[in-house]
Amino acid sequence: MEIEQYVIEKAKLAKQASRKMVTISAKDKNNALMAMADALIDNMEAIIEANLKDVNKGREKGLSEALLDRLMINKARIEDMALGLRNVASLEDPNGEVLRMWKRPNNLTIGQIRVPLGVIGIIYEARPNVTVDAAGLCLKSGNAVILKGGSEALNSNTIITNIIYEAAIKNGMPEGCIQVIETSDREAVNVLMRLNEYIDVLIPRGGAGLIQSVVKNATVPVIETGVGNCHVYVDLDGDLESAEEIIVNAKIQRPAVCNAMETLLVHKEIAGEFLPKLAKRLKGLGVKLRGCSVTQEIVKDIKPASEDDWGTEYLDLILAIKVVDSLDKALEHIYLYGTKHSEAIITNNYKNSQRFLQEVDAAAVYVNASTRFTDGSEFGFGAEIGISTQKLHARGPMGLKELTSTKYIIYGDGQIR
Amino acid sequence: MEIEQYVIEKAKLAKQASRKMVTISAKDKNNALMAMADALIDNMEAIIEANLKDVNKGREKGLSEALLDRLMINKARIEDMALGLRNVASLEDPNGEVLRMWKRPNNLTIGQIRVPLGVIGIIYEARPNVTVDAAGLCLKSGNAVILKGGSEALNSNTIITNIIYEAAIKNGMPEGCIQVIETSDREAVNVLMRLNEYIDVLIPRGGAGLIQSVVKNATVPVIETGVGNCHVYVDLDGDLESAEEIIVNAKIQRPAVCNAMETLLVHKEIAGEFLPKLAKRLKGLGVKLRGCSVTQEIVKDIKPASEDDWGTEYLDLILAIKVVDSLDKALEHIYLYGTKHSEAIITNNYKNSQRFLQEVDAAAVYVNASTRFTDGSEFGFGAEIGISTQKLHARGPMGLKELTSTKYIIYGDGQIR
Repeated sequence: MEIEQYVIEKAKLAKQASRKMVTISAKDKNNALMAMADALIDNMEAIIEANLKDVNKGREKGLSEALLDRLMINKARIEDMALGLRNVASLEDPNGEVLRMWKRPNNLTIGQIRVPLGVIGIIYEARPNVTVDAAGLCLKSGNAVILKGGSEALNSNTIITNIIYEAAIKNGMPEGCIQVIETSDREAVNVLMRLNEYIDVLIPRGGAGLIQSVVKNATVPVIETGVGNCHVYVDLDGDLESAEEIIVNAKIQRPAVCNAMETLLVHKEIAGEFLPKLAKRLKGLGVKLRGCSVTQEIVKDIKPASEDDWGTEYLDLILAIKVVDSLDKALEHIYLYGTKHSEAIITNNYKNSQRFLQEVDAAAVYVNASTRFTDGSEFGFGAEIGISTQKLHARGPMGLKELTSTKYIIYGDGQIR
Repeated sequence: MEIEQYVIEKAKLAKQASRKMVTISAKDKNNALMAMADALIDNMEAIIEANLKDVNKGREKGLSEALLDRLMINKARIEDMALGLRNVASLEDPNGEVLRMWKRPNNLTIGQIRVPLGVIGIIYEARPNVTVDAAGLCLKSGNAVILKGGSEALNSNTIITNIIYEAAIKNGMPEGCIQVIETSDREAVNVLMRLNEYIDVLIPRGGAGLIQSVVKNATVPVIETGVGNCHVYVDLDGDLESAEEIIVNAKIQRPAVCNAMETLLVHKEIAGEFLPKLAKRLKGLGVKLRGCSVTQEIVKDIKPASEDDWGTEYLDLILAIKVVDSLDKALEHIYLYGTKHSEAIITNNYKNSQRFLQEVDAAAVYVNASTRFTDGSEFGFGAEIGISTQKLHARGPMGLKELTSTKYIIYGDGQIR
C-alpha cells in the first residue's frame, strides 16, 4: 500500500507537470536540455561514485561481465550522455506542427495539430544511459516522464535523475517533469502499469521477457519495442557479391542488436554457387552456421538447423541458413517465423522486389541493403527511443514525432448542427 | 477449451486473410462492397426474420424499449446499411499513400507508406448496424475483421455477416476476411482479447462498462472510444446570442451521444445577464438544470449540482451549470472533470481563444461552435468507426486512415553499415 501510494503520488505530479509542459516554448526546453548536459559533466565524480556502488553490488550478486559493462559508467560515457542531450536540444520540436487543416462547407475550419502524449512511463533494465536518453527525448517532445530502471542500477539512475531534474527545474521546467521510481520493489512496476488515469503510454525497453511482461500486465497503452528475428533472402537474380557484403554486415557488424540478421534464405538455383564461398567467409569471421538439409549437402560440416532455429533471435554470432524453392517460399518462411522487425531481399528482379516490399509485413522492408539500417539515427531522425514492432501508433524507429499525439482544433463562428 | 479453440481458429483464418488483403486492389474491394450492399437488399426478408427472433427474445428478457429499438431492423435500416457500404466504396483507399520519402547521405531511399493494420477485432453491443459498418470499413482499409456483437443480437449478426461475407468471397475477397463469433459465451471475448499473435488491434464500441472491461483485460492493443463529459465555457467576451444557440444545440440536438454537452461553465461577470434567459429556454425544451451555489442564486428553482454532477456523463436532457471566476478556473474544471473528448469556448477574446485551444487536452477543442461536430462525417471523413479518446495511434473521429498502420520501405543498391 505504501508503494502504491508512492507511485501514485509520482504519477499525479507527472500529470500536473505534463499540463504545464504544453505551454513551454522549444527555446526554453532547449535551454533546459543544455543545462542538463552541463550538470552531468559538472557532477561526473559523484555519478561515477554512485555507479561504483551499483557495479560492486552487481559483481557480488554475480552479474555477467556483459551486464556489468552495460551498467558501468565512466567519464567517456557521461560525456556521451551529455552529448546526447545537446543533440536532442538541436532537433526540431515536433509539437505544434499542423498535419492538415481544412474548411468544411459550413465554414468550420478544422486543424489537426501535433501535441505531446502527456505522461510517458519508461520501464527498462540496468542501463543508466537510458535514463538520460529517455528523459531528454520526453522533455523535448513536451512530455513528463516517469523512469523505472532495473534495480541493479538504482543508485546510478537516482543520482543521474536528481542531477538532470535539478538543472531542468532551475531552467523553468515544471516540478515533476522528470521523475525516477526510487525503489527496487517490483510492486512499483505493477502499480505503474495500471495507472491509466495518470499515464498515457508505457514504453518498455529491454529484453523479450521484460517487454512481454509489460504487454501482458499493463492496462496503460504500451508501445512494444524490440524483438527482431530478421531475414535476408538472396533471390535468383541477386547480385551475389553485394549479397555477400550485406549478409556479412547484417550478421557480424553488431550481432547482439535487434536489427541484426538471424536467418539467411537462399534461392535453390544459386545456393550451390553462393553458399560455399559465403560459408567459408562467415566461418572465418567466427560465425557458427546451422543449415537445412539442402544447405548441409552444399556446405559440409555444419550443424542441422531445427524448427527452433527458425524461430530464434540468436543475438549472437550464429546464423541459420535455409535453401528455398522460390520467392513464395521465402515469403512464407518470413511470414511464419519473422517478428515484423526488418527483412531484406537481394534481387535485381523488378517484380520480385515490388512483391517483397508489398507482401512482407514488417516495420522495415529492404531491397538490396543491410537490415542493420533500422535505426533512428540511420533513418535521419536524430535520436531514437526504441524500435516499435507493433502496428499501433508507431512502427519502426521512434524519434521525437513518435512521442507525440495529435488533437483537432476547430475555429467556428457560431456553427450548430 | 472448445470455445478457446473456436476463437483461435477464427483468428488464425483472419490472419491468413489479412495477408492476402494487402495485395487486393481498391477496385476489387469496391466491387465487393457494392456486392455486399446488393446482397443485403436481396436478403432483406431473411434478415428481418432472424432479427425478429432476437427482438422477441429481448422482449422476453425484459430489454428496455431503447435497447429494443437499437436492436430492431426494418427495411429502412437495411437500406441504410447498404447505403453505408456503397458510401465506403466511394471513399479513397488510404493504403499505399506515401507519407514521406527521403534520400539518406548513403543513397538509401526510405519511404513511409500506409498499410493495413492486419486483423481488427470489434467488440460491441446489440446494434446490428455496427456489424455492417465495421465490416465495410475494415474491408475497405485492407483489414480482416472479427466481429463480436452483443449476444442479444446474435441471430441478426450471424445472418448479416453470412450474407455480406458470401458476397465478398464471390467477389474475390479472401476466405476469413469477415467473421463473426457465433456464440453468446462470454469466454469468447476473454480469449479474443488475449490473442496477440493473431489480432493487431481491438476496438470496443459501446458503453463505458464494455470499454473499460476491454481496456482492463485485453493484452491486444486497444483503441479506446467513447466517453464524453463535454463542456461549453461562455467567456466574459462571448457573444451571448451565439452562445445560447450553441448551448441549446450541444445539449438537446441529440443528448444521448458522446459529443453532447454535459456541463456549462459561465464567467461570473456575465452569468447574471446570461443565465436567466438561457435557463428559461432550456427548461422550456425539457432540460433539467442543476447548478452551483452561484447559479442557484441567479436561476431560481433548480436543483443543486453535487460533486458527482461535474463528473457525470448524463447522456440525457440534464445540464449541470457552474459559474466560474475566470478562464483559468474554467480550464481547471475541465482538467479535473473532462474526459478528453470535446470542449468548447464561446469568446471573442483572441488571447483566451488561443489559450483554450492550446491548454485544453482533448480530442477536439472548439472556439465558437457546438461540441456536436466531433464526428467522422461532420469532419468530412466520409465514415467513422468510433471516436478515440486515447492519445495513442488515433485521437478523435476515426475514419479509414485511422484503421491503417505504416511501414518503411527502403530501396538500396548494396548499402552496408
